[in-house]
Amino acid sequence: MSIPAIDGERLWSTLMEMARFGATPKGGVCRLALTDEDKAARDLFSRWCAEAGCSVTVDRMGNVFARRSGRDDALPPVVMGSHLDSQPTGGKFDGAYGVLAGLEVVRTLNDHAIETEAPVEVVSWTNEEGSRFQPPMVASGVFAGAFDLEESLAAKDLEGNTLGGELARIGYAGSAEVGGRPVAAYFEPHIEQGPILETEGKVIGVVTGALGQRWYEATVTGQETHAGPPPMDVRRDALVGAARMIGEVRRIGVEHAPDGRSTVGFVTVHPNSRNVVPGSVFFSVDLRHPDDAALAAMGEALREACNAVAGDEGLEVKLEEILYFPAQPFDPDCVRAVREGVEALGYAHRDIVSGAGHDAVNLARVAPTGMIFVPCEGGISHAEIEYAKPEDLAAGCNVLLYAVLERAGA
Amino acid sequence: MSIPAIDGERLWSTLMEMARFGATPKGGVCRLALTDEDKAARDLFSRWCAEAGCSVTVDRMGNVFARRSGRDDALPPVVMGSHLDSQPTGGKFDGAYGVLAGLEVVRTLNDHAIETEAPVEVVSWTNEEGSRFQPPMVASGVFAGAFDLEESLAAKDLEGNTLGGELARIGYAGSAEVGGRPVAAYFEPHIEQGPILETEGKVIGVVTGALGQRWYEATVTGQETHAGPPPMDVRRDALVGAARMIGEVRRIGVEHAPDGRSTVGFVTVHPNSRNVVPGSVFFSVDLRHPDDAALAAMGEALREACNAVAGDEGLEVKLEEILYFPAQPFDPDCVRAVREGVEALGYAHRDIVSGAGHDAVNLARVAPTGMIFVPCEGGISHAEIEYAKPEDLAAGCNVLLYAVLERAGA
Repeated sequence: MSIPAIDGERLWSTLMEMARFGATPKGGVCRLALTDEDKAARDLFSRWCAEAGCSVTVDRMGNVFARRSGRDDALPPVVMGSHLDSQPTGGKFDGAYGVLAGLEVVRTLNDHAIETEAPVEVVSWTNEEGSRFQPPMVASGVFAGAFDLEESLAAKDLEGNTLGGELARIGYAGSAEVGGRPVAAYFEPHIEQGPILETEGKVIGVVTGALGQRWYEATVTGQETHAGPPPMDVRRDALVGAARMIGEVRRIGVEHAPDGRSTVGFVTVHPNSRNVVPGSVFFSVDLRHPDDAALAAMGEALREACNAVAGDEGLEVKLEEILYFPAQPFDPDCVRAVREGVEALGYAHRDIVSGAGHDAVNLARVAPTGMIFVPCEGGISHAEIEYAKPEDLAAGCNVLLYAVLERAGA
Repeated sequence: MSIPAIDGERLWSTLMEMARFGATPKGGVCRLALTDEDKAARDLFSRWCAEAGCSVTVDRMGNVFARRSGRDDALPPVVMGSHLDSQPTGGKFDGAYGVLAGLEVVRTLNDHAIETEAPVEVVSWTNEEGSRFQPPMVASGVFAGAFDLEESLAAKDLEGNTLGGELARIGYAGSAEVGGRPVAAYFEPHIEQGPILETEGKVIGVVTGALGQRWYEATVTGQETHAGPPPMDVRRDALVGAARMIGEVRRIGVEHAPDGRSTVGFVTVHPNSRNVVPGSVFFSVDLRHPDDAALAAMGEALREACNAVAGDEGLEVKLEEILYFPAQPFDPDCVRAVREGVEALGYAHRDIVSGAGHDAVNLARVAPTGMIFVPCEGGISHAEIEYAKPEDLAAGCNVLLYAVLERAGA
């Protein structure tokens, strides 16, 4: 069969209408999970899905599933989606694009009266960002069996409200079981959140997997002292040591280019007084790589570098690994379906690895999973100026339609 | 005449008794300026001085002067002293030693019925530390004409209390004019707050002057972005740049060894989130040197280094000089009086430059000034474990007695 094109203008206007909920003066979106703004976004999405003929179900984590029946409704569904919550100073596209691209696929199937063999579902996952409730991607994590349901419902925001309580408050504490049912395939379209596609002039990133992550906390201890009297050669300055370690963290990432990432994002200095030589420094380290062996080597290099600097500077360093996500390759058949769609449609593309976490990384544990990236301006996301071009968003949605039809059977 | 020895045991027990006000469980002192603890310390000092036959005067900045008359009371006085306020986690000796060594000199003169030609005064300066009210050394600064009286009285602590209001509250808003009268000489004994004397086995440091200081604020700006997707080679990580600059600050101090000092004591990272590449970093720089030309060269090297790193890393840097104290040589006659005392008494000694600010640096602007350093354990001060040996404290006090008699005329 020939595959129709999705309606790019409809997709864009749908995105813009959704972006009104939590709209910020600077053109971004503040739609924290389970706030009134999130409820309004969920209500509109549910109404749109019902109008598109879907049956809408909410599970106990508040995940919203909109189902379009297949010829054989007993088959496991092909699921598309992402999330509708945002960062506090987020943009219009992170999450919302994946959900509304799924809706656009359903609308296009309806327009052309295309039946699929398996049912097709659009999902909006609860609290992907983790800005209000920790951890992020919690609801897809419960769906995938990575997190406990009751513990996740008990997660509290800074004001002490529980996730479960807030689900009930906004009317999204559903009754469906969370997960525990087969999924034929899961596809998540998303803005890249990096600059690779834009820089290389590509329209689509065929996502082959997600980077593994290792997070560390480092505490460097020296001798706090007055900044005046002690000569340079007797000092044990924890900040001088930490600064060298931060340089080493960068070196380790660069030595694992192009796939490695290394970041120190958080630093506290003690006592943090202008005329006191710092006695201790605490900092975080975030290492990422698509290959677990390489990621482990980066971690080992980090430990060696920190110990070497500490020895050299007369300091002590404590380095603790606090988080480990193994690298998550995506399903070869799903990746192939995306790649074939891109090639059939003739878009400029490249294979790419997701550097960020996504609900798809959880889904990949329990279902064949793929992702489709489209460029975002300057690679910037989690920011009010986040922007993606209408034609690129439409291209990603066309690829999604292709892949879904390939997996659901037309 | 032969000069008697001071009573080292009395000096020590006086120090220990004073250390009860604001005593901390870890053996230090928390006696912030103009608190109830500071009032109690002032009351005891005033009582001791009165018992030693001195007339006690308080000026409008709360500086306490205890005067022992000379044969010719119209002569300008020889003044000794330091301060009784402490850091929040300070020690027993920083400041208190200078004040109580002055008292011990008066007591020794009394014990031996020694008259001096000029009057002798012991002073306790208000708010030397600057821990509660900014700037530090404010009251000796008003005395020396460096700061305005009314502005200084209006300085506020973090809770909004003014220095003038707190002086009145504790009964130390005196009526005497601040400064404006001749001082024949000013001597300030103090712990070294550095490790040089201890390392070299010296008992006395003959202080020839104070380091000049230049303070800067640096703001490094890059591009805040997600720590996952952007590859290493496209990042503009403000923290990576700031870390290199912190290394350059250290290099500049080392290249000006043994007299140069360079410290980054204060750092804030924005947004300071573990999985976000830092978009900006703010840090302080404190440069010190006893030679103004060398200090200026250090400042120039700092600017060049920051600009070079910023250019190399694709960052912007703003570097602002916020404070400049020129190097302050002490009075040759006062330095000679101290050195002659040390030699007469046979203590192991060396010339030394003060790396820290002291009330003496303000006094040096308006009066012949000298300082006497004694070792402190590990060079550590501004810390509860700060410690000085009784015999070293006694030695410094004997030198003070010698220098005061030399200048006041016995």
